[in-house]
Amino acid sequence: MAVEDPHILSAFDRDLEALQAHLMRMGGLVEAALMSAVQALEAHDIAAADLVVAGDVAVDQLEEMIQTEAATLIARRAPTATDLRLVLATMRAATSLERVGDHAKNVAKRTRIIDRSAPVEAHAGSIRRMAMMAAKMLDDAQLALVRKDAKLAMDVRSRDVDLDQMYNTLFRSLFTYMMESAANIGPSMHLHFIAKNVERAGDHATSIAEQAYYLATGTMPAEPRQKVDAASMPA
Amino acid sequence: MAVEDPHILSAFDRDLEALQAHLMRMGGLVEAALMSAVQALEAHDIAAADLVVAGDVAVDQLEEMIQTEAATLIARRAPTATDLRLVLATMRAATSLERVGDHAKNVAKRTRIIDRSAPVEAHAGSIRRMAMMAAKMLDDAQLALVRKDAKLAMDVRSRDVDLDQMYNTLFRSLFTYMMESAANIGPSMHLHFIAKNVERAGDHATSIAEQAYYLATGTMPAEPRQKVDAASMPA
Repeated sequence: MAVEDPHILSAFDRDLEALQAHLMRMGGLVEAALMSAVQALEAHDIAAADLVVAGDVAVDQLEEMIQTEAATLIARRAPTATDLRLVLATMRAATSLERVGDHAKNVAKRTRIIDRSAPVEAHAGSIRRMAMMAAKMLDDAQLALVRKDAKLAMDVRSRDVDLDQMYNTLFRSLFTYMMESAANIGPSMHLHFIAKNVERAGDHATSIAEQAYYLATGTMPAEPRQKVDAASMPA
Repeated sequence: MAVEDPHILSAFDRDLEALQAHLMRMGGLVEAALMSAVQALEAHDIAAADLVVAGDVAVDQLEEMIQTEAATLIARRAPTATDLRLVLATMRAATSLERVGDHAKNVAKRTRIIDRSAPVEAHAGSIRRMAMMAAKMLDDAQLALVRKDAKLAMDVRSRDVDLDQMYNTLFRSLFTYMMESAANIGPSMHLHFIAKNVERAGDHATSIAEQAYYLATGTMPAEPRQKVDAASMPA
């Protein structure tokens, strides 16, 4: 049997590389959208929020393209079970990223109509920090997927616990603002919605990371990740 | 050229039928989960809510199976572009249904910890009616997909406008409860979250219906559907 030259890529590998390149491009777009959306909130920048909303079409089209490309790859190369799992994981990751794009759009839509108010001034910074964390998690989750890096995947997953804690702290803080003044209720409800959308971006990063872990090790991460949700707060 | 006997199914058709049967089964599961979750809310039935949360694992496994089955079908049958579109639409529908399962689980998780209170008594019925509408939309969207029924697909899509209106009415009503008494704020925030999850189920039904329309006609529905979101309410 001939020794394989690692520098000669198979047709499957070349197709997969192209597919993953598109995934990374899509990841870059949604991370930028998420950051723009929360920066628009903090700066009361309606025009910037409009751009995020309008830009989601490009994300959706890229996702559409990746799914078709992946299906065509499967049809043309009839990959082995292991390679098929890789393509399916890429398709799933594209779906997750598309959802993050939707979350960024949701944040931007609320940003367009939320009033300058005490709750916004008090929480926009925290929301931006949450978004930065989520964007980094998304970036690392994609890296973990492409490199089949189990360690990085687990690291992303553990960071989601911090993100959940930040969301819960924010939820409680919004709660106190609403108790203090009825005028804070409207903006706080919108901020709660915005924070939840950012927190969900972290969940998608985690789900990509779990796929990466599975590809690297052949098993899903051991103990089920315990979600610490504001739902744990009686009300 | 021989005239095709419509009673003789190709290997592709048989595989597709099996795939669609699994999709319908998954649809049945998530519709039931959604209804159980809102009924548990209305009846303050924690045990029923627990069952919904526990049952989501089965939905996730079914989705996993459908994706693998679809990919295997593509690899084995190397379908034409039109048939490939059909399989991709089925994969997308499975993803949408899995998301609805998550929404049902979210409703159930909040139901477990929400207190009996005036806002719950006042809104649990509306939320159940929203869920019934969403479940019917999901059912019809799957039918439209399997039958490639453009008319039914458009009908599902138009019903989503009603569902959005119900959500917006509920949002405003919760708002007044929160203004009336600080004790209502906690339960109302949870109810807002629950209602949003039910409303999202309708969005997924619409997205399945749009795929069905595309398969039937080769184009996406004409004008972009205008979402009437509570975000249109200044706050």
